[in-house]
Amino acid sequence: MFVILVYDTAVERNPKVLKTCRKYLHWTQRSHFQGELSTAQYRALMAALDGVIDPEHDSIVAYTTRSPDLVESTTLGLPLGGPGEIL
Amino acid sequence: MFVILVYDTAVERNPKVLKTCRKYLHWTQRSHFQGELSTAQYRALMAALDGVIDPEHDSIVAYTTRSPDLVESTTLGLPLGGPGEIL
Repeated sequence: MFVILVYDTAVERNPKVLKTCRKYLHWTQRSHFQGELSTAQYRALMAALDGVIDPEHDSIVAYTTRSPDLVESTTLGLPLGGPGEIL
Repeated sequence: MFVILVYDTAVERNPKVLKTCRKYLHWTQRSHFQGELSTAQYRALMAALDGVIDPEHDSIVAYTTRSPDLVESTTLGLPLGGPGEIL
């Protein structure tokens, strides 16, 4: 499946969230990853993130489609995964 | 079409980007909107954003699918469009 993941987490938890996402997906923009995963990988990623965030303060949204072919992406400005990589 | 839009823009341009996105889409999370648009609305949104950002420093990614039915979304932590609305 194709996964788009966006997080809005407190600064102190950002490094752990970033590290967890990097294990499974490609960094796209600040707080934003994408990639292709198996169902098992997707479940493992979401379970890992669930253990890292504080559900009272943080938010993670994952969008999935069966195939990347179902999604068209358009970028304005700096390209995906460009030089602006920051926490 | 269903649109997921994520931006990574410099602080000084965030209010304009936010205002432009709000005209067309629903705020979801910090720097993250979604919604259903016609092709004409989508083009108008992207043209407006193109006029607001600095392409040397900012980045906007828009994902589109023909229908929201093609996308499944899962949220961990705070719900979509929750109380944490900030610039």
